[in-house]
Amino acid sequence: MHLDHAQLQQMEQRYRATFINSLAGYRQAVLIGTSSAEGQENLAIFNSLMHIGANPPLWAFICRPDTVQRDTLRNILETNVYTFNYVRGDDHAKAHQTAAKYPTGRSEFDAVAFTPEYKAGWPAPFVAGAVVQVGMRFEERIDITRNGTIMIIGSIQHIHISDTLVGSDGFVHLHEADVLACSGLDAYYQPQFIDRLSYAKPDKAPTSLR
Amino acid sequence: MHLDHAQLQQMEQRYRATFINSLAGYRQAVLIGTSSAEGQENLAIFNSLMHIGANPPLWAFICRPDTVQRDTLRNILETNVYTFNYVRGDDHAKAHQTAAKYPTGRSEFDAVAFTPEYKAGWPAPFVAGAVVQVGMRFEERIDITRNGTIMIIGSIQHIHISDTLVGSDGFVHLHEADVLACSGLDAYYQPQFIDRLSYAKPDKAPTSLR
Repeated sequence: MHLDHAQLQQMEQRYRATFINSLAGYRQAVLIGTSSAEGQENLAIFNSLMHIGANPPLWAFICRPDTVQRDTLRNILETNVYTFNYVRGDDHAKAHQTAAKYPTGRSEFDAVAFTPEYKAGWPAPFVAGAVVQVGMRFEERIDITRNGTIMIIGSIQHIHISDTLVGSDGFVHLHEADVLACSGLDAYYQPQFIDRLSYAKPDKAPTSLR
Repeated sequence: MHLDHAQLQQMEQRYRATFINSLAGYRQAVLIGTSSAEGQENLAIFNSLMHIGANPPLWAFICRPDTVQRDTLRNILETNVYTFNYVRGDDHAKAHQTAAKYPTGRSEFDAVAFTPEYKAGWPAPFVAGAVVQVGMRFEERIDITRNGTIMIIGSIQHIHISDTLVGSDGFVHLHEADVLACSGLDAYYQPQFIDRLSYAKPDKAPTSLR
């Protein structure tokens, strides 16, 4: 099947959104925890986490201001702090349900039965029991003017993870904790480990790091 | 285990890079095909594909100018065109090997035995036999000044995919073709499908779309 740009533009809007978003492939499912300046908690699933760099440790995500994600955006811009949380495959339905448009004043933590967890020195709520909990500080907003989306860049301030998941070279074995992955806006996956490979060098086949 | 920002800054550099990059979770493995203005072909693996929007169809990726990835960047800025290609899990070692620093004038297509494929009307090389082949046109470069990385935004111009992978609502069943996923710089995965869930609505449990 071959589709060109003109055919994509002619697609029915919802079909195109599902097609282009799911075609973009596998990604990490991440629950972003925030609270407003008044203390109203919010939790929302995102599929756009991006590694920007390790030194300093910077991660970004993409926000569409025309959806429920705007609560997350507003809270981050108000408070400068937020959390990234990865949950297990078993929790995929609860994670998905955080995308519902709950009325103002209703916390998604409460609505979907995740428990907010506060840790010393960090004012944004984590998801209690999440495999990975990362405290993020807002650093920079980049407006992508072509379609009105917003990239939020933050620095990693706190990481909470079981040390059993971190290998001797720093590699994080997320698959050993059944961490949830996703694609598009509604599909959930459990990645199976194939292999880790040695640093690639010309004309030398990579070897397994297992 | 709890790590704060100061502890991250004190980590040995390679350990930190492996830790922070792999902690960022699962992502799509994508081979970017380009050629220089003089016709020298290049193929390189990236793990930073990001969906920006469906209308117009825009995808981005992140480029670190201090690595072999700069050949890809230079070619895109010279020619304005490139391709995204997804391969199967079986090809993970060949895909990984495209990251090796081959000498100038040596094509990674040739070095790792992927075959370049040219299609009518598109001057950048695809990976022959790839499950997904997407022809991209360069649209915008965003410099992330905090760490010198560069985000390249492009528009989707051509999509080549088997119609058997595209569902009636547009969802792309990548797992049915064993499409390769990755994490960090060297780990490869085969995602297993858990479920697709209906559009999330308040106080109504999502149902399976299978």
